Amino acid sequence: MTAADRRQALREGLIAAAGQAIAAEGLAGLRARDLARDVGCALGAIYNVFADLDDLVLAVNARTLAVLERDLARARPPGDPQGAEAAIAALEALALAYADFAAANMLRWRAVFDHRLPRGRSVPDWYVSEQARLFDYVAAPLRALQPRLVAAERALLARSLFSAVHGVVVLGLEEKLQAMPREVLRRQVATVVTALARGLRDPG
Amino acid sequence: MTAADRRQALREGLIAAAGQAIAAEGLAGLRARDLARDVGCALGAIYNVFADLDDLVLAVNARTLAVLERDLARARPPGDPQGAEAAIAALEALALAYADFAAANMLRWRAVFDHRLPRGRSVPDWYVSEQARLFDYVAAPLRALQPRLVAAERALLARSLFSAVHGVVVLGLEEKLQAMPREVLRRQVATVVTALARGLRDPG
Repeated sequence: MTAADRRQALREGLIAAAGQAIAAEGLAGLRARDLARDVGCALGAIYNVFADLDDLVLAVNARTLAVLERDLARARPPGDPQGAEAAIAALEALALAYADFAAANMLRWRAVFDHRLPRGRSVPDWYVSEQARLFDYVAAPLRALQPRLVAAERALLARSLFSAVHGVVVLGLEEKLQAMPREVLRRQVATVVTALARGLRDPG
Repeated sequence: MTAADRRQALREGLIAAAGQAIAAEGLAGLRARDLARDVGCALGAIYNVFADLDDLVLAVNARTLAVLERDLARARPPGDPQGAEAAIAALEALALAYADFAAANMLRWRAVFDHRLPRGRSVPDWYVSEQARLFDYVAAPLRALQPRLVAAERALLARSLFSAVHGVVVLGLEEKLQAMPREVLRRQVATVVTALARGLRDPG
């Protein structure tokens, strides 16, 4: 193993250990001392591969987004949807996959949205594009619903459509409001996303 | 001043000071020592009126919800909307008021959703009903859109409609995704809520 290999192995080990800690206890459960123990390195060694814990959380969150993206890619019917009905079905399939992912990976999923960088520090560009790619899954069916929308407007509306479904899921699973049972949540998500898609359909 | 008055005054002082601290720096900016200094009490005196800081945050969040409710009440056209078009207009007015409230009170508004009680502790009933009351604002126009929906289903869908708008606002204002300028956000909220309402309209 070269020094670069060892560095890479430590990096991967820390991402895995931090991912498990977040999955078990949420962001609040992340402690450098525990991570060092879990991967068997010195406390200071963490900071040879990550600038700080925020940097490590970004790496974990990027992995979470990658798993979510894999689920969305699987849920999406193959090819770009042709016609409004196919687009509505595609949006429903994507929204249900999103709800299922969130319910099954609650604390890791929440960490993606709850994590805040210290004031004055902005999210690195690579992370911004990881996030933005998810909206593209929504943009394709949206094109079938509103073929005349220009690309910039479509991108904006795709983000808002994604966000609307996100809202239904995030407050649907919120314990402070009594979390909805999974089947109730799926029905609400389906109702909202299909109504939204029907309402957005270009009258022709 | 009786002892009860002094207790009440300290309670109000702490809620105000904590509200300001959250508005300035978010939940992470809340420190018991600073609060005691701000209101001029001993550190331990805080715990004579609140069980702990979580209890104090719940009190601040309830105030935030009360101000939001006042804004929603003002935005809502008077009387229950008659007919689908009036219901769509009412939902749009409520959604825009919500977006404006969130943008103008960002950190206090976020604290309502970001605050988590320690594991195993559940939100007190009085707080649950404060939250649930907000959904009633959505339930009234929803009744005009879907008169045949039974009350329990309407309450569930009202929560989901509220949540969809919440999602558009929360991710629209998210710096990690580049926050939308206020006017862009308002347009997106209006587009989503009116499309959603049109799509939910009972065909008769």
